[in-house]
Amino acid sequence: MTLAQKAGDVLARVRAQCPLIHNITNYVTVNDVANAVLALGASPIMADDIAEAADITAMSAALVMNMGTLHERTVASMLDAGKRANAMGLPVVLDPVGAGVSKLRNGALERLLREVRLTVLRGNLSEISFAAGLQAAAKGVDVSEADASKDPEAVAVAAAQRIHCVVAITGAVDVVTDGERVARIHNGHRMLSRVTGTGCMTSALVGACVGAVKDPFLAAVAGVASMGIAGELAFERAGAQGTGSFHMAILDALSHMDGPLMAQRGKIDEA
Amino acid sequence: MTLAQKAGDVLARVRAQCPLIHNITNYVTVNDVANAVLALGASPIMADDIAEAADITAMSAALVMNMGTLHERTVASMLDAGKRANAMGLPVVLDPVGAGVSKLRNGALERLLREVRLTVLRGNLSEISFAAGLQAAAKGVDVSEADASKDPEAVAVAAAQRIHCVVAITGAVDVVTDGERVARIHNGHRMLSRVTGTGCMTSALVGACVGAVKDPFLAAVAGVASMGIAGELAFERAGAQGTGSFHMAILDALSHMDGPLMAQRGKIDEA
Amino acid sequence: MTLAQKAGDVLARVRAQCPLIHNITNYVTVNDVANAVLALGASPIMADDIAEAADITAMSAALVMNMGTLHERTVASMLDAGKRANAMGLPVVLDPVGAGVSKLRNGALERLLREVRLTVLRGNLSEISFAAGLQAAAKGVDVSEADASKDPEAVAVAAAQRIHCVVAITGAVDVVTDGERVARIHNGHRMLSRVTGTGCMTSALVGACVGAVKDPFLAAVAGVASMGIAGELAFERAGAQGTGSFHMAILDALSHMDGPLMAQRGKIDEA
Repeated sequence: MTLAQKAGDVLARVRAQCPLIHNITNYVTVNDVANAVLALGASPIMADDIAEAADITAMSAALVMNMGTLHERTVASMLDAGKRANAMGLPVVLDPVGAGVSKLRNGALERLLREVRLTVLRGNLSEISFAAGLQAAAKGVDVSEADASKDPEAVAVAAAQRIHCVVAITGAVDVVTDGERVARIHNGHRMLSRVTGTGCMTSALVGACVGAVKDPFLAAVAGVASMGIAGELAFERAGAQGTGSFHMAILDALSHMDGPLMAQRGKIDEA
Repeated sequence: MTLAQKAGDVLARVRAQCPLIHNITNYVTVNDVANAVLALGASPIMADDIAEAADITAMSAALVMNMGTLHERTVASMLDAGKRANAMGLPVVLDPVGAGVSKLRNGALERLLREVRLTVLRGNLSEISFAAGLQAAAKGVDVSEADASKDPEAVAVAAAQRIHCVVAITGAVDVVTDGERVARIHNGHRMLSRVTGTGCMTSALVGACVGAVKDPFLAAVAGVASMGIAGELAFERAGAQGTGSFHMAILDALSHMDGPLMAQRGKIDEA
Repeated sequence: MTLAQKAGDVLARVRAQCPLIHNITNYVTVNDVANAVLALGASPIMADDIAEAADITAMSAALVMNMGTLHERTVASMLDAGKRANAMGLPVVLDPVGAGVSKLRNGALERLLREVRLTVLRGNLSEISFAAGLQAAAKGVDVSEADASKDPEAVAVAAAQRIHCVVAITGAVDVVTDGERVARIHNGHRMLSRVTGTGCMTSALVGACVGAVKDPFLAAVAGVASMGIAGELAFERAGAQGTGSFHMAILDALSHMDGPLMAQRGKIDEA
């Protein structure tokens, strides 16, 4: 079986199980995140008040934490929910949006890495570089030019070994690694960077997958490749119309994503 | 006149009056809620800080409170705004999103039911069951399997009689009742459950209708049936493309919703 | 060179420089705001916690503050970020959403006007009238009927002279003035008022432009005219389908907006 076929099996499991995915996320892209999770066949729930966050995690199949529009208030909720997930053996995905750009985000990331065991860490090259303790010079929430020269594969492996989790770096070629196995995903389209939230959606898709299967490496490959293929399909159908139609077509494509489509379109190789 | 024709008259009144509808709602679906209210011909305003919530209610034609992504902070604002609406005789719609899933939501719902007189309560079967004090086993914000076996009509009537308001339970067949009259709405499409926020939008549409006419039973029928018909039209036009296009087509359909369309497509009978 | 040609040059500069634009904004329209900024070729970052707001401003090319869904918490962040922008000589755009409708918003606006030097103030006639200290009777976040009889040009000039910044009033005809020069923009379509967030997006587009060029008058003209032209193009392509498709087509049009399109479609004259 190829990795693409295995990733396709993960997607079939998501649709069969419809796992409940708890998202503590930002208010910019939250609607797309919920709709992306629904499109893949899982069930999203959003809750970030500390009075309920851990309880919502406890009834879910996975927790996805996203640092966009971070608040002191939501950091506390993430810590609480993350610890509950750890105590119950539930998978935890972290998207360290904007890691490196402010003391608030850096401090939050440090605490999250210290106090919560992650299952998957997904971000761009700048964010993962920062998380791995490597030097990072982030420009807003996009990849900085200094970071662009780094080797994503080396950064991802270093981060995975240091943080002891699966790491996914999305970019021109996506890299997923558990520190030993390394998958490269050659799907995607650069127009994805012209719509906000494609990274956040990818992390939530990984959450949907990791909520359905036990293998976090394969789950991360399936989630990341789903967005890549959706980007290609969306570009083919709607790219010429503009970013609004492309945005909508991403969700259309995710709602048709399944095992056969992944097996057919997934361009995934293992290093 | 059929109920569908009467519901059509409600929609005509909404477009003629353009009532201002105050929404205290969640950050997941708030954009769709605002656009749904606009599409039906009313005017939305969103404000949840306790420093202004009641004042915004006072200038509005109706208040819609939605418990998604609930915070302690917004619970206080809802109580304040709800009491002001009661004092001024303004209609109040409550969407108890996730009732039953956490102490935060359950405690908030209890306080809202005790301290604010509702005009319309709209939710799914799990949420309304919980609100009516019946046993509920909610799964996230969707209907749980245990609840699915209950009779929505009996639950709605019990809730309406106990809470003394109009109750709308949306599902395969929607039920609207004031505790005596019972309307069943056979519009809708199951694809509506694959887009987040269709429930929230429905509650806000009920708010737009109840802000324009004095009869809350008829207003709830009109608001609920509008979403049902919009779902059918959206599926016919865009269902095959996927959930992104379907989502957009719901708003397209709502923006064309009016008396004649309701009279023609509404499948509403009274028990 | 016509004003439309000059505005076209501004757009070319935005695409060439991709300025980072910090938005402290509401949770209703924030996704559209981010996507509009991306569509025009700039890079959005959203951050409103006081622990990072000023630091995010410091790394940005411009700050855009929007008073929708205002909170006490975000007012403090706006003041902090605004002062940092002033200290660093960075441009500041304010969208006083709902100015005049509550003590919270009016108090916040007063403090912002007193403590932060604005580069551009953009709003509707009610909001700018209120900001200028003229009498205003706002209806929600739309223009009230009493205000509709005022002369936007006179209000804009008075506001610009009093507040010492560029003022843009959007409406049937948009007016942009620095208190001396007055530009009138005859682009746009009334369907723009049937989608929430077109005003917020316009302010953010002005932010993108003012982050790329030194002339705030011209930047405001370019930002405002971009939305007007996008509204026309969106109506031509998708208006008949409804407000959902129209909404998406606005973003499509913005993603194609550039110098030649502005020079060709811009209907801008100077008083």
